[in-house]
Parts: sequence; C-alpha cells; structure tokens
Amino acid sequence: MSKKSALHINKGTSDAPYINPKWKGSTRSEFDVESLCNLVIKGESTGLSKAITLIESLAPKDKVHARKLMSMILPKSGGAHRIGISGVPGVGKSTFLESYCSHLLAEQVDIKIAILAVDPSSELTKGSILGDKTRMESIGKDPRVFIRPTASNGHLGGVAKSTYEAVALCEAAGYNYVFIETVGVGQSETVVSKLVDSFLFLAMPGTGDELQGIKKGIMEMADIIALNKCDSGREVAANQNAIELKSALQLVSRVKDDWQAPVIQISSLERKGMNLVEEELDKYYRHSTLKGRFRLNRIKQSEYWFEQSLGELLFEKLGEKKDWNQKKADFLEKVRNNALTPFEASEQFIAQILD
Amino acid sequence: MSKKSALHINKGTSDAPYINPKWKGSTRSEFDVESLCNLVIKGESTGLSKAITLIESLAPKDKVHARKLMSMILPKSGGAHRIGISGVPGVGKSTFLESYCSHLLAEQVDIKIAILAVDPSSELTKGSILGDKTRMESIGKDPRVFIRPTASNGHLGGVAKSTYEAVALCEAAGYNYVFIETVGVGQSETVVSKLVDSFLFLAMPGTGDELQGIKKGIMEMADIIALNKCDSGREVAANQNAIELKSALQLVSRVKDDWQAPVIQISSLERKGMNLVEEELDKYYRHSTLKGRFRLNRIKQSEYWFEQSLGELLFEKLGEKKDWNQKKADFLEKVRNNALTPFEASEQFIAQILD
Repeated sequence: MSKKSALHINKGTSDAPYINPKWKGSTRSEFDVESLCNLVIKGESTGLSKAITLIESLAPKDKVHARKLMSMILPKSGGAHRIGISGVPGVGKSTFLESYCSHLLAEQVDIKIAILAVDPSSELTKGSILGDKTRMESIGKDPRVFIRPTASNGHLGGVAKSTYEAVALCEAAGYNYVFIETVGVGQSETVVSKLVDSFLFLAMPGTGDELQGIKKGIMEMADIIALNKCDSGREVAANQNAIELKSALQLVSRVKDDWQAPVIQISSLERKGMNLVEEELDKYYRHSTLKGRFRLNRIKQSEYWFEQSLGELLFEKLGEKKDWNQKKADFLEKVRNNALTPFEASEQFIAQILD
Repeated sequence: MSKKSALHINKGTSDAPYINPKWKGSTRSEFDVESLCNLVIKGESTGLSKAITLIESLAPKDKVHARKLMSMILPKSGGAHRIGISGVPGVGKSTFLESYCSHLLAEQVDIKIAILAVDPSSELTKGSILGDKTRMESIGKDPRVFIRPTASNGHLGGVAKSTYEAVALCEAAGYNYVFIETVGVGQSETVVSKLVDSFLFLAMPGTGDELQGIKKGIMEMADIIALNKCDSGREVAANQNAIELKSALQLVSRVKDDWQAPVIQISSLERKGMNLVEEELDKYYRHSTLKGRFRLNRIKQSEYWFEQSLGELLFEKLGEKKDWNQKKADFLEKVRNNALTPFEASEQFIAQILD
C-alpha cells in the first residue's frame, strides 16, 4: 500500500498517532515511524500534524516512537527562519500574523509558512491562542500555510521540548518560515526567545506616557518592536508613542550583539507597514548571518536547553526517591526557623541524599 | 585566661582565625569556636572580623569550625535593617555611604553600622570597592562603624553564602544597620537583592535623555532610587533627569508589593538630601513591616538560597564523579551536531549517570 493512500485514510480523522492500515488489528508497538517520517519529509501536512501529536504525547510507548522519529528528522531540520511573535493579549497577534503572512504569500510563490502557538497559560485563558482558528481564516486555507497550537500542561520545560521538536518537524517538512506565537504572560516569552532566530514584539499605542504591553525584560529580548494599531487617524498618538518607546529602549538597551531594536509603526487591520516588518526582519537576519551569530545562536540555544533539561530531569529523578520530599521539607523547616543557614541545610540534605 | 585578654593578644595581628593562646603549640583542631562566638556576641569588632575570615575560609577544617560557629550565631541574628546599595562604578557609592552614615551617626547615639562590600568582579576591578578604605576615612574611625570587604573568588554562590553569614554575624554582634554595597556589574545586584530588606540604587544625571547607570532589570529590584551628584548649580539637569527616570520607571514598574520606587535627588559630596534617604528608607521599612512582608521576604530569601545552593551543590557533587565531565562533553557534542535534541541528550545522560 502506498504512503499516499495511507495518508488518505488518515485524512480528516482524529489526531491519533499514525498507524499503518496494513497492521489493522495488530498492536501499537508496530507503529510505523519510518512511514510517518517519510510523510513529514514529503511535506504532507496531515503527516506533520500526526508527527507533532506523537511528540507531544506523554504515553511511554509514544515516547519511544517519538525518539526514533526525531533521530530521523533532526538531520533534515534547521532550514527555516524561526521568528518569535509576542505581545499582551489584545495587541493583535493573530491579526498581525494574518496580515503579515498574506503579505509574504502574495510576494513569494515558493514560500511555506508554519505557525506554532505556545501558550503555557492555556489553563487560565482556556487556550485562547489559535483556539479560534477563524481568526486566521484567510491564510489558514492556503495550502502553503500550516497552523498548529501547542498542547500545554502548564509545564514550561515540556512546552519548550515539544515546540523545539515541532519546529524541527516543520523544517524537515520544508517550511521555510516558522512563526512561534506566544502570549505575553509569565515565562513563555523567555522560552520562545530561546527557540527562535528573531524575536518580534508587538506593542500598541496607549494613553499618556504609558505604553501598553511593555513588560520588564521584554526590551532586552525583542529584536524588532512593532507598534501595532497605528491605524488611520491615530498618527499623532502613534508618533508620540514611538518616540517614547525609542527613548525607553535607549535607557535599557541591550548590548548583546550590536543591534539596537528598531521601533516601527504598523496597522495589521489596515495591512500597513508589512513591508517594513519584512525589511527589518531581513535586516536583522543579514546582521546575524554576516557575523556568524546565527549559527552560534542556535548552538547556544541547544546548549541552553540541554543544561535546562538536565537540571529539570535530575530533580525529577531524585524527587522520585521516596525520602526526597520529606527530607527536603524537614530541611526547609529548619531554614525557616533559623536553625540552619540555607547553605548548611542544602549541604546536609545533599549529603544525605547522595549517600 | 579571660576572653578579654585573648582578644587583646589577637588585636592588630594578621586576619588569621582566632586561636586561644592557651593552646599555643597545639593543633588547629582545638580552635576555640565558643570563645570566638562569645567575642562576636559581645560586639568586639576584632572578634567579628576573625569570625568573618573564618566563614570565608575554604579550608575543610575551617569549614567545620565555621559550621559550629554559625549554628551558635544564627539564633542571635536577624536584628538589623539590611540595606543594599548599588550603582555603576563612579556613581559615588563610597561617598554616599560616608555621607549617609555620618548623618545617621550624628542623629543616633546607640547606632551600630556595618558596611559589607560584595564585589564578585574583583578579579577585573582589582577589588576597587573598599580596597582603598581611605575613601570612607571619616566614618571608618568611628567605633560604632564596622567596614569589611567580602573576599571574592568570582564565584557568586560562594559570595552569597559568605555575605549571608557575615550579615548574621554582624547582627549577632549588635549592629542594627547592615549596608551591603555592590558594584553594578554582572549578577552581583541580583545576589545582593536577595540578601537585603531594602535596596537603594544610586544613579547620576547623564547627558540628554540617557541616564547613567540604569541597567536592565535594575528598576525592578530597586526600592528607592537616589539620583546622586545633584550638586549645586546642576539643578536644571537634575530635575530633568529625575522626571525622565520617573517616567521610565512607570514604563517598567514592578507590581510586586504595591510599592512604586521613589526617585530622590541627593548630593553626597555636599551632604544634601540625606534626610530624604532616611525618610524613604523608613517609609519603605514601615510599608514592609505593616503588611508582614518583611518577615515573609526574609523567609522567601532563605528558601531561595536553599534551592539555589541545592542545585549548585548537586551539580558540584555529581561533577566529582570521574565520568561526568567526559560524558557530558560527549552529549553536548551530539547536541551541537544535531545528532540528538538537547532534551533527548539530557535524558540519556541522566539515565547513564544515575544508573
């Protein structure tokens, strides 16, 4: 049976991991990772979708398959420009993506765009990001576009892992733009900033000297700041806000890579300024690649996630020891009561655990 | 032999840990921790100095004594208002401390002030902080003042531990103000902010719309911002800068505890505005204590250092296993070559190590 018809059978069914029909009645252990991998590499969006579902799964059996899949996918990954998009709820991230992607789709025939949404706070917001896909209706119907919300269980490490792998899958499937959208809540921006090549932050004109959506720390992460909702008739306020924003940026400017984040004025609703966004993203991309920072940044990100994951897993594994939690609580109590310094307490705790 | 004369013998000698003279010729293992503890509690500054040297020591034998000393000291600690002082080199931290402490000493007879300097970057700056004690000459001679630079080996965790313990020792010795001065370099401000009750940040008027000394992240940590060098004749520039600073603060204001950091104008050189500093520090202290945040903050800080130290020690201990470094390097290489995802690599690594 050809892979084509295998895909056909799965089309439109639930998002369960791909099972080759010739195994009908057999056990899940015979899950055909190779066929799924081939579907992804051929750029079949249904296959890509199944693959992402597989790597998001927490079931031990799926994890074995996911591991195999990723080892086959990884050598084919890396080919996209990974762009992070953030901003507070209501700033117009979906409208921006629709407007900007329409612009790119109209300009480039060979383009393939993937949009992943990271929302570690979905328990709070009931998955508002991309939950209502109609918000990106016009681009969602284009066969060159793949839209996918990332499942979340509020666990940042897990979100990072599945998004990292989803990006690799999209790249192996030939997508050359991968947008990662995140709501500006909690630590999600930090996570996304460590997964992308370029980070675009959306703000909007506020009232007086208060700029909506500028959060602590964000100005360091943003490579480009787009002041959205600079609609017709709001030019004066928009200009004023842009000036304030630039001034604030200078105060807390980063020196990380000789790049001063530009502030551009756009209106996603009126589809104005999309060429500016493209220009600045291209400029930043050239800036990065010229000095070899692009590749270096990706290696640094991988190393970062290795270290992060190492710490997380280590504590997870140690926490499974039955006396870990009780002992830790005992020592914390001693710290609270000033019976031990925190440093002495952790030393005694580690000594007992590693004994 | 009385403790008094024991102290006398050590007075003016090198900063070696205290050894009771009656053990002359005996081994270091008989180091008299109890006598040293008593000297500290009596408020003898030489004893305090020796005690800090002891807790800073990295020698295994000293660590045993330091541990014993701290267990005796801790129940007597906690009595001071711990105040962090930061700002870029050249902002005038030493001049400020001299000016502000003179103000406090003139006002309060029963006051006891300890000044600790944390400088994890001393390898770079050659220990510029407090290295030249003559900069605080006028207060350094006052018997109510204790000045002490913190030894540094560039290791933040170690600096935190010795500063934490030095604060406790100063408190046990009856000091009711403990200032922790740090140079605004690298992570030292974050460390200090987790060791103090109140954090005062010094800035200075710059040129144009650029404010000297405002670094990323600092505005969240600062409880009070003092614009130093607002000397006579510079009022216009100073006012302008204060307005800009307030405006910038609003943009990135913290919401942590209903406190908006005030911006005050002072001149340490001309000893102007010292009453304002006292007023704002008192106001913040009252703000904290009224709502129980003061105690809660200290408990949170202890818990923070427990967790931090736990992670650090755990990796230190595991790193001592002979295959850890080699295995880790191998996995990192696989991550760099895209042969494994960082998440998969860390999982395999941990599995091998904990086996």
